[in-house]
Amino acid sequence: MNSFKPKNRILMGPGPSNVHPRVLEALSRAPLGHLDPQFIELMDEIKSLLQYTFRTKSNAAFVLSGPGSLGMEACLVNLVEPGSEVVVCIGGYFANRMAQIVEKIGGVPVMVKDTWGRAFDPQKLEDTLNEHPGAKTVAFVHAETSTGALQNIKELSSIAHRYGCMVVADTVTSLGTTEVSVDEWELDAVYSCSQKGLACVAGMAPVVFSDRAQEFIKNRNKIGSWFNDLNLLMGYWSGEKRAYHHTAPSNQFYGLHEALILLKDEGLDNAWRRHKENSVKLIKKLNELGLKPLVPDGERIPNLITVLVPEGIDEAKVRAELLARHSCEIGAGLGELAGKVWRIGLMGYNSNEKMIDFFIGALKDVLKK
Amino acid sequence: MNSFKPKNRILMGPGPSNVHPRVLEALSRAPLGHLDPQFIELMDEIKSLLQYTFRTKSNAAFVLSGPGSLGMEACLVNLVEPGSEVVVCIGGYFANRMAQIVEKIGGVPVMVKDTWGRAFDPQKLEDTLNEHPGAKTVAFVHAETSTGALQNIKELSSIAHRYGCMVVADTVTSLGTTEVSVDEWELDAVYSCSQKGLACVAGMAPVVFSDRAQEFIKNRNKIGSWFNDLNLLMGYWSGEKRAYHHTAPSNQFYGLHEALILLKDEGLDNAWRRHKENSVKLIKKLNELGLKPLVPDGERIPNLITVLVPEGIDEAKVRAELLARHSCEIGAGLGELAGKVWRIGLMGYNSNEKMIDFFIGALKDVLKK
Repeated sequence: MNSFKPKNRILMGPGPSNVHPRVLEALSRAPLGHLDPQFIELMDEIKSLLQYTFRTKSNAAFVLSGPGSLGMEACLVNLVEPGSEVVVCIGGYFANRMAQIVEKIGGVPVMVKDTWGRAFDPQKLEDTLNEHPGAKTVAFVHAETSTGALQNIKELSSIAHRYGCMVVADTVTSLGTTEVSVDEWELDAVYSCSQKGLACVAGMAPVVFSDRAQEFIKNRNKIGSWFNDLNLLMGYWSGEKRAYHHTAPSNQFYGLHEALILLKDEGLDNAWRRHKENSVKLIKKLNELGLKPLVPDGERIPNLITVLVPEGIDEAKVRAELLARHSCEIGAGLGELAGKVWRIGLMGYNSNEKMIDFFIGALKDVLKK
Repeated sequence: MNSFKPKNRILMGPGPSNVHPRVLEALSRAPLGHLDPQFIELMDEIKSLLQYTFRTKSNAAFVLSGPGSLGMEACLVNLVEPGSEVVVCIGGYFANRMAQIVEKIGGVPVMVKDTWGRAFDPQKLEDTLNEHPGAKTVAFVHAETSTGALQNIKELSSIAHRYGCMVVADTVTSLGTTEVSVDEWELDAVYSCSQKGLACVAGMAPVVFSDRAQEFIKNRNKIGSWFNDLNLLMGYWSGEKRAYHHTAPSNQFYGLHEALILLKDEGLDNAWRRHKENSVKLIKKLNELGLKPLVPDGERIPNLITVLVPEGIDEAKVRAELLARHSCEIGAGLGELAGKVWRIGLMGYNSNEKMIDFFIGALKDVLKK
């Protein structure tokens, strides 16, 4: 069997995206032991960079050694006790997955549904909390990767706390590309991924737990996972003496560290502005081709645009031709949007005018415009 | 903050170990989407390479996107139903962790204990199965990374099956360095890691599930994890049309693929022989320094030697000086062997005479011999 030589793809789907050459180089540095003093220093730097990125002072800001969906399961399994009601605000595929996980781990999901492709209506959350006074947790997705809609999670979080609930927030597609203010918004368990706004390769889940969440988790009944148990993870990620939990993926961490430095050097505000501006430019050019975004203005994720597939177009064929002729990947619709939208990502390293021009050129060619 | 520049360590602890330059190079190739046709081909090749390495024909041979300890949790959470008895053969720290996980996920661990540093006595397993006729699963560690002892898992597995149990086997420290014959030994759920015998970086957990295990998992009650649910994972790893489950870490997979090719090119038999021969050489030289292995001859893991710390020696100081003066990492004792042994790894890329000579020289210097 031969060594694998990946084609050079232009990754303009919902993630992974292309990454800075410095990040790729970092991945191939010499591995270190998971308890090497130098590696512990690296972990501390990652923690500090994540505190900056998540806008939090929490001591429990660190990385899980698995992808964003592991982060989803980890946040829920720590915060949700068996038999406990969790209100899940569902306006897309990934919020739906949250409900599935709640059910898997023995919680009771209370599913509040709203239109896919729109910001979630806060009144619906409030009504549901009135109907379910026993609910202890509220869960939602900030930037719904399946629809392209951005929620007002500051408001959703504030409602949840008014009803005495803790908040689990998915920031998989928002972190690094649009404001995520964990402390100000009082989010209790937050997870993200490495391969979207953070512009690193896939496979890591940055997380934050608030002090309130940590206190609850310390005192709750048995957690149904050893690998994701926050109490055990904190023994490895904090304190004077680090206790071995699992063997951390050193080379993945090198990549994340490098990507977080690049983001900090740019500055969060600048990164948010860049994503917003490029999003506006892309949509303008898509409009010129007669293509319409699914999500109304003001409710859109800046880094992931869902575009309605025009009547009479074979959407899968367009994606296949973009890949075959231009080595460019975009995403298909998921769940109830399957076959109805394309998902176009402009994230991290890829959010720039050159990529927009390349993509519009490729799309024109494939659509024969 | 600056880019991270890891020191060039000689990794001679229980893993991670140093890796071939081809593996490091592979990690920095261009990322691919998790549903890219080329990536699916890579996954199929990894599956075929793992079938070779695990000596299995099972279709469920693939990689979990997290470290070996995630593999431990995944195998147990799929095979163990809540309330179900699991006999765990415990002769070290990692078997103990298996019992902890069984308890976490709602199973009932039946702990059979034997001497740390010795091969587990099969009679003890048989006696326990007689006393617990309701037990449905038997779990053990093939090569106990905390003690250096190798179990006769062929015999343990055969006893388990005689009592109608399925078998969960930890091959974290044995795979690639000593025989692991999943089909011949009738193991039902097997996990390993990437950073030891497979000579890759840390962060991936190769697994195999037997046909019998797959059948059971398809029909059992709800599995208490979404991320580790085999039924969902198989939707992504097998069949004509692959269903998105999580975003696989493409660059980690490149590294594993390259490492598995290197292992196959050498040949499993040759790799086992090399580890055995270098182990014998290392022990001979350690004996010459007056150091004694914990585990008796014939029961030792070839790639991880536990050495008794001589009277009057500050074991932590020796490790710290090896690291400071020779940039060489070895492992400390864990659990009841903490402070009593050093753990010296000669694994994968590092199992060669040059490493033995380097290490003995460094150890002589530190021990002032």
